[in-house]
Amino acid sequence: MCAQLLSTKPYKGTRDFYPADMKLRNWFFGRIRSALELASFEEYNGPMLESLEIYIAKSGEEIANEQTYNFTDRGGRRLAVRPEMTPTVARLVAGKINELNFPLKWFSIPNLYRYENPQRGRLREHWQVNVDIFGCDSYEADLEVISTAISLLKVFDADSSMFKVHINNRRFFNDVIAAIAGTDAEGSRKVSKVIDRKNKVPREVYEKDLIALGLDADKIAKIDALYTMSVAEAAALCPESRGAQELIDLFAALEALGLAEYCVFDFGIIRGLDYYTGTVFEVLDTAPENNRAMFGGGRYDNLVGLFVKNATVSGVGFGFGDVTLENFLITHNLIPDIYAEGVKVLVTKFDDVPYSEYTKIVSTLREAGVQSSIYIGSKKFGKQIEYAVKGNYSHVVIMGGSELEAKQIKVKDLRTREEVTLDSDKLVEYFSAQ
Amino acid sequence: MCAQLLSTKPYKGTRDFYPADMKLRNWFFGRIRSALELASFEEYNGPMLESLEIYIAKSGEEIANEQTYNFTDRGGRRLAVRPEMTPTVARLVAGKINELNFPLKWFSIPNLYRYENPQRGRLREHWQVNVDIFGCDSYEADLEVISTAISLLKVFDADSSMFKVHINNRRFFNDVIAAIAGTDAEGSRKVSKVIDRKNKVPREVYEKDLIALGLDADKIAKIDALYTMSVAEAAALCPESRGAQELIDLFAALEALGLAEYCVFDFGIIRGLDYYTGTVFEVLDTAPENNRAMFGGGRYDNLVGLFVKNATVSGVGFGFGDVTLENFLITHNLIPDIYAEGVKVLVTKFDDVPYSEYTKIVSTLREAGVQSSIYIGSKKFGKQIEYAVKGNYSHVVIMGGSELEAKQIKVKDLRTREEVTLDSDKLVEYFSAQ
Repeated sequence: MCAQLLSTKPYKGTRDFYPADMKLRNWFFGRIRSALELASFEEYNGPMLESLEIYIAKSGEEIANEQTYNFTDRGGRRLAVRPEMTPTVARLVAGKINELNFPLKWFSIPNLYRYENPQRGRLREHWQVNVDIFGCDSYEADLEVISTAISLLKVFDADSSMFKVHINNRRFFNDVIAAIAGTDAEGSRKVSKVIDRKNKVPREVYEKDLIALGLDADKIAKIDALYTMSVAEAAALCPESRGAQELIDLFAALEALGLAEYCVFDFGIIRGLDYYTGTVFEVLDTAPENNRAMFGGGRYDNLVGLFVKNATVSGVGFGFGDVTLENFLITHNLIPDIYAEGVKVLVTKFDDVPYSEYTKIVSTLREAGVQSSIYIGSKKFGKQIEYAVKGNYSHVVIMGGSELEAKQIKVKDLRTREEVTLDSDKLVEYFSAQ
Repeated sequence: MCAQLLSTKPYKGTRDFYPADMKLRNWFFGRIRSALELASFEEYNGPMLESLEIYIAKSGEEIANEQTYNFTDRGGRRLAVRPEMTPTVARLVAGKINELNFPLKWFSIPNLYRYENPQRGRLREHWQVNVDIFGCDSYEADLEVISTAISLLKVFDADSSMFKVHINNRRFFNDVIAAIAGTDAEGSRKVSKVIDRKNKVPREVYEKDLIALGLDADKIAKIDALYTMSVAEAAALCPESRGAQELIDLFAALEALGLAEYCVFDFGIIRGLDYYTGTVFEVLDTAPENNRAMFGGGRYDNLVGLFVKNATVSGVGFGFGDVTLENFLITHNLIPDIYAEGVKVLVTKFDDVPYSEYTKIVSTLREAGVQSSIYIGSKKFGKQIEYAVKGNYSHVVIMGGSELEAKQIKVKDLRTREEVTLDSDKLVEYFSAQ
């Protein structure tokens, strides 16, 4: 063996999942998967390695190169470890555009790699739930996506005091800005850019930039007022806007579904100027320590444009990562003792009993669906009990030579410390009643 | 948009998982995960990217470089997309060697990348079930691993006519070869190398090589005879060998567990000379078209040697890929209609009914745990039914303006084509009875 020992640490920004970590992740992704399947979303996946060019085509050479792990294979193909799922799912949809059953309700839980310095809530490798509806242009898909986002937090018993969905509409945003500013398309776009940066610059700079684009104090005040308006007040400023109508329909439907308490109209939600085209939303954690958008999403057009000519498929969806979700669940105390429920039996062993007597017990228990195992180490009884406790077993089965002769078995419940002696053939019955 | 359209094909040797593919994979991995949990194995995972050096340390610079996707990050770290799970799990075990609860029963279902030309049953990206027991030196762990391997095929209703586990023991192999050949350790090793190549060279070459190492025709015949012997006959040739005793114990225990019909002693199973140290086995598909080892495994020593000084942890385990498993299941007709079971309801919609009436229905159904969805497209009723059929929905719910007024709902079972009319408030009851 080589003299120099290797490090046991995982690569920077990535995590190891020991069984306890994995159990937690399987628990929360299991709940999410069930909730999505209940709502008839179907799961898909794609490869970890993708052609780098699909990210370049979407985000430009510089961003794709900088922010992905990428390399060239021996055939000269430029590959990237996938940094996001949208280009992959666009490729899948484009690849079977004439066969697929639109509208699609799809989800995926891929692991993704982004090349940036790790920070709270953002690691280099994370798992991301992606939920999308493809091929439905009406607000009904937006409603389904937002109500699904809410349901995914409600499965953890999160309530409306813990998070809020902040909703805006990009079509309405553009229309109302143009109406207030009185600008043409190009002018409105410039105004939008200033508004998008509102919280990132001092107030004076913001105002100066708007004045430079021809807006006076009155118009600036009108824009300011939008941030505290209800959806009805805001929509009334621009009633002929399709975006305003979508907002009204969406909020009415959320109300009808009993979801109004989770949702607020928020004119400050923009989510990048170039990508989203209709409804946009962000889910905000109300806890001060996680005081930022947990996740967000919205409606975008032309999903498949990079892959297929003369075809358009719109999408509306959202994505959120396991790290963010875990922070939310921990902050709000929403993780139960995932070991507390369920029977898990360790059959202890003694030297005066043939091993096959123990394998028979375990075989019978497993056939009856009872999670069980023989202690296969070489330690004495006391250490076997320690092994069971440390391994989160709920029960130990005890059968030494004298019990075997008497055709009896002892069972100790490690949670209550109660011990019972049973006839050997009553063991399955005992655990079925647990 | 750029004029040049991008390819919709996945990268060479990788696969896209459209919902039907994903549903199949989730189905079979779900069964495997349940069977492993029933036997008290615990799931772990690690990152997709690992330091290249852990593969170099195990397999040498050339193999590690040639057979992995690897590259250097901006910090000068050499990384590989993981080609196998053993170095990762060794790193995990080594990293918490003083805290972990040995013996460990661990499993993982990672995706792995190997850089080689794709062929039947071997792709560049595949998912591999890895099952191991760490820190137990006795045959009891070997028994648990082999009986688990059998149970993972039995969950698919595979029987002993479809596969067999071929078992040997490397300790026994070394001892019996040394006993027959009468060679010292170095000589025995040379003989073993020749035997390992037996099926890859013509018979004359095999015999010539053994003669060159000092074996005569009688000794060669004695070795030949091992290939058709029962485990008792073989063990009798070398009764003082620990390996022989392990084989006898293992086969007796398999017999006691009722697993004898799945297992054969096979002196031809070696599995590479340098890695395995005790029990070795391969699971062979009996179907002529898959006439090769589906998967194999065995016992190896010193798992953590590359990471920790003065500590040894032995392992026994096996791994098998999703592609191999799927081929086996298809060949033996073991995949049921995974869409046949389960209720999945599409609520169709009509323009003369407020949309909120439909969202209420779906909301009620989902609360009752019924998988359901509203049709959110813009097509007419006939097309909505087509959508339901193509989307593997089991039922459609039909409520036009007249039904709404009469407080009734129609339900059509798409499998039986039966249609019933119910009072609106009896809908959950109807599906609960399905």
